[in-house]
Amino acid sequence: MKKPSNIQKITLKRGKQPSVNEYITNICDGDIPFLSKAITLIESTNPKHKDIATRIIKGCLPFANKSVRIGITGVPGVGKSTFIEALGHHILQASKKIAVLAIDPSSSINKGSILGDKTRMESLVRNKNVFIRPSPSGNNLGGVARKTRETIILCEAAGFDTILIETVGVGQSETMVHSMVDFFLLLKIAGTGDELQGIKRGIIEMADAIVINKIDNSSKANVQRALSDFKNALHLYPIKESTWQPKVTSCSALNNQNIDAIWNIIQDYLVLTKKNAYFQTRRNLQNEYWLLETLNQNVLNHFYSDSKIKLELKNALNTIKNQKGSPFEMADILLNSYFKLK
Amino acid sequence: MKKPSNIQKITLKRGKQPSVNEYITNICDGDIPFLSKAITLIESTNPKHKDIATRIIKGCLPFANKSVRIGITGVPGVGKSTFIEALGHHILQASKKIAVLAIDPSSSINKGSILGDKTRMESLVRNKNVFIRPSPSGNNLGGVARKTRETIILCEAAGFDTILIETVGVGQSETMVHSMVDFFLLLKIAGTGDELQGIKRGIIEMADAIVINKIDNSSKANVQRALSDFKNALHLYPIKESTWQPKVTSCSALNNQNIDAIWNIIQDYLVLTKKNAYFQTRRNLQNEYWLLETLNQNVLNHFYSDSKIKLELKNALNTIKNQKGSPFEMADILLNSYFKLK
Repeated sequence: MKKPSNIQKITLKRGKQPSVNEYITNICDGDIPFLSKAITLIESTNPKHKDIATRIIKGCLPFANKSVRIGITGVPGVGKSTFIEALGHHILQASKKIAVLAIDPSSSINKGSILGDKTRMESLVRNKNVFIRPSPSGNNLGGVARKTRETIILCEAAGFDTILIETVGVGQSETMVHSMVDFFLLLKIAGTGDELQGIKRGIIEMADAIVINKIDNSSKANVQRALSDFKNALHLYPIKESTWQPKVTSCSALNNQNIDAIWNIIQDYLVLTKKNAYFQTRRNLQNEYWLLETLNQNVLNHFYSDSKIKLELKNALNTIKNQKGSPFEMADILLNSYFKLK
Repeated sequence: MKKPSNIQKITLKRGKQPSVNEYITNICDGDIPFLSKAITLIESTNPKHKDIATRIIKGCLPFANKSVRIGITGVPGVGKSTFIEALGHHILQASKKIAVLAIDPSSSINKGSILGDKTRMESLVRNKNVFIRPSPSGNNLGGVARKTRETIILCEAAGFDTILIETVGVGQSETMVHSMVDFFLLLKIAGTGDELQGIKRGIIEMADAIVINKIDNSSKANVQRALSDFKNALHLYPIKESTWQPKVTSCSALNNQNIDAIWNIIQDYLVLTKKNAYFQTRRNLQNEYWLLETLNQNVLNHFYSDSKIKLELKNALNTIKNQKGSPFEMADILLNSYFKLK
């Protein structure tokens, strides 16, 4: 689809709210101030802003979807920032434009590069082909995920063809990131012996590649052992629908060692999944997932935030605690009350 | 609470539907034909039967809740029937009354003991202090779970003080059973090396005891290895709220070897959790779980079975597939339409 050009390109003025069409035109033209301001609308809690944001996203959608989205996860201390910086510089050599986003309030993008004074992605930040945006705030991970996902669309429309999304390997944020990326990369360090934790938490299952980072700081024996442990762990899982066999490798982000090989793995994945059409299948499945997830959350929220239901639920919990009724009987009563009301 | 005695005990007659009070009185009197007929009402899909069943359960509730509920899971071939038979006979020595239920249509209770001609729990079936009921049918695991949970209440009111609930270690039925028992026992055999599968599927995390069965048929080295593998796997998990440290042991159900030790483990658990009050805490949490689970399922069902929503959802999926709208925008449209309707 051709980019919209009926609207004259304008310069963003402080305090003035541009029209939806002005936003769309300028974002699609790669204008960073417009992109940033539109992301701020996405992140706003003002319902008016939400409405404008929705229309901007709708307008940008036809120009989005042309990037590769890469999720990078790992526990604190695994070297995510250094890795993203090293990978970023490697990708830039191929004249790519990179957007770096985060989905966790505790993300290093937040703490180190954007808000802190000693930026850890210093050299990336200065590059004009790199756009870095901290994680949107919010306690509700679902809300944070929605904002990040909508931000991806705008970044893609603005011409960023490689989206790196960082998340800390704790809690449920990995599942969120996994549901919005094409390739999911798990960073580890050798010698922790925690591949069982990764199995337990379901992260190994999501990984398209597991990378042992900081080999400059580990013994060869430990690195070898970590590689073989994770290879074994991957054997637990059936072959993926993509037919991709997840890879296990090592690197030193600090010394730029093996970063090219990791980028090649990602390229191999893209070649395979674009050839067998899984690339688009996965994006369609993700869109379905977010549609259904948003519906489920909102339908349930509507029920539980109903003031009558809140009171009845409190009473029902008391009733079952005192053995005066079964949970199923109480559920029937609440459901009757809710659906009669409507 | 005193058992109801205002209604004269009657004999169940074929074809005649007793009153709710007659059901309650006779079940609480330990009358097996009444118990069986009431369970049939629970399992019925006739709404009239459901209403009677709900009232019977409500009447029996004050007399229930006095048993120990033990969940027994393991993959096919692990020897669940033989184990239940051996454990059952051991429990009967302590003048207990045992109800054996199942929560899986593929359960061995269904296939072997009740419906098959060569019963595998033959000697238990003949004991008057044992009540065996096959798994209720139904494709919806939630529905099967509800029926089983309501059956537990009636069995307890009828004086069964030990409820054994069998489930096959495949799919989600373990989570269901775990949410309705006091003690969750995982049966394994040595030499399969599949403790990682148990971690992956979250079953190890639920187990209060892991028992390596069929040691009569395994090498000592394999049994030792299985014991130590599962002990290691258990170290992955933080201390349970019950403060109970899950046990790993072995047995031969076939030769009645070490069955007494397993029963002692269960007794130790009961002593601990009744002393620290976790026993009742867990039952309360389970009741809350079933209340909320039932609410969630029904609220979502109501949404997705709405004929207007069904059509709009189909259109929305097409729209996002064709990049004409984002999943979040489509979700907003469906939600507006649903809640305006009501």
